[in-house]
Amino acid sequence: LTFNSPDKHLGGRTSGGYSESIVVNEHFVLRVPSNLNLAAAAPLLCAGITTYSPMHHWGVTKSKKVGVVGLGGLGHMAVKFAHALGAHVVVFTTSPGKKEDALRLGADEVVVSRNADEMKKHAGSFDFILDAVSADHDINAYINLLGIDGNLTLVGAPAEPLRVPAFGLIMGRHSLSGSMIGGIAETQEMLDFCGKHNITADVEVIPIQKVNEAYERLLKSDVKYRFSIDMASLKSE
Amino acid sequence: LTFNSPDKHLGGRTSGGYSESIVVNEHFVLRVPSNLNLAAAAPLLCAGITTYSPMHHWGVTKSKKVGVVGLGGLGHMAVKFAHALGAHVVVFTTSPGKKEDALRLGADEVVVSRNADEMKKHAGSFDFILDAVSADHDINAYINLLGIDGNLTLVGAPAEPLRVPAFGLIMGRHSLSGSMIGGIAETQEMLDFCGKHNITADVEVIPIQKVNEAYERLLKSDVKYRFSIDMASLKSE
Repeated sequence: LTFNSPDKHLGGRTSGGYSESIVVNEHFVLRVPSNLNLAAAAPLLCAGITTYSPMHHWGVTKSKKVGVVGLGGLGHMAVKFAHALGAHVVVFTTSPGKKEDALRLGADEVVVSRNADEMKKHAGSFDFILDAVSADHDINAYINLLGIDGNLTLVGAPAEPLRVPAFGLIMGRHSLSGSMIGGIAETQEMLDFCGKHNITADVEVIPIQKVNEAYERLLKSDVKYRFSIDMASLKSE
Repeated sequence: LTFNSPDKHLGGRTSGGYSESIVVNEHFVLRVPSNLNLAAAAPLLCAGITTYSPMHHWGVTKSKKVGVVGLGGLGHMAVKFAHALGAHVVVFTTSPGKKEDALRLGADEVVVSRNADEMKKHAGSFDFILDAVSADHDINAYINLLGIDGNLTLVGAPAEPLRVPAFGLIMGRHSLSGSMIGGIAETQEMLDFCGKHNITADVEVIPIQKVNEAYERLLKSDVKYRFSIDMASLKSE
């Protein structure tokens, strides 16, 4: 692997994305559009492609109604992409406090998922829902929001198996699927899309000395929405 | 509804498929190919379209690997369709005794699903699996048999919610979906396909006097594979 594997050429361990310079096969090199801030572009290679790929695969385009469940590192990218693709974007969150930020990121509506009445208003209406929640939650509440041929894709993986009533899928030919990052060609396509629409992640740049503190904050979801490490800080050690 | 609703024109209740003659809107009339036996064609309008529609929707064609879980009324139609579409057909059953019949119906292979070793041989290899089992069962055992972009469609509805581990869907971009009968246009397409390939259901024709006995046998899965009632028997009352 690129990171933490034996280095076949120089000995020692490989440093992956922490490397100052790196030699790779040209098939695995990506071009970052020059108008994008590099610190804010870094998460595109994980949170970006993870959310872009399933939207692309399941046909999110102009006029589609798209839901995003969970507004974190993945979710905030999903909102930006769905908005840029011209979809009507609805963010589902358990935190009413995230409403303003969701709208700023490009959401057209925000639903507090604990409010059953608000949820009910959207029953049977979504073309696509991206679920970025890793905590256990009621997936059927979202399956019921899908319209005919609607798809719900998981990019978060709750520890416990999801409980899925068959009828929620049978009625309306709904589908439930998963997705994981994407290939090189699609990642380049995503980066080019970001360049064209001036999309990057919202990042908080930290020096590497604060990496443990950042990890603690990450566990409390205390970041909007990704940490990006300034590797120049390593030299000030 | 066509059956057991107030008859707006003649009074009384509507008799649906039990009617001797019926007046319907021309948009809802289907043409049964003349080469098909009518008693054996009857189940095509339910078990037939229920299994044909998802295969059509999810792209079952020549050279695809297709699984059919459960060999009953729905499953035996699925095997016939998948075989006629040119797919490599694998039947999963809990009953080793059904092997011979599965092969006769068009299966290329039969797997006894209780045999973990047999199941393992097919890991990650299916393009499409149709699950026609209404009893509670381990759906993840079948999700794990899907290849990249593979789909598993439920046409049976177990009473308890299915337990679906997220990673089974995330790895390989698998999808789990449901399907329910089909529209008029697709039903006609299915009937025409049956006419061309000389496909009907395997039926046991009974007089209406035996309908209660047939119901008891149905509960024990003691029918290969659908009962068809000879309505002429009603006149001999």
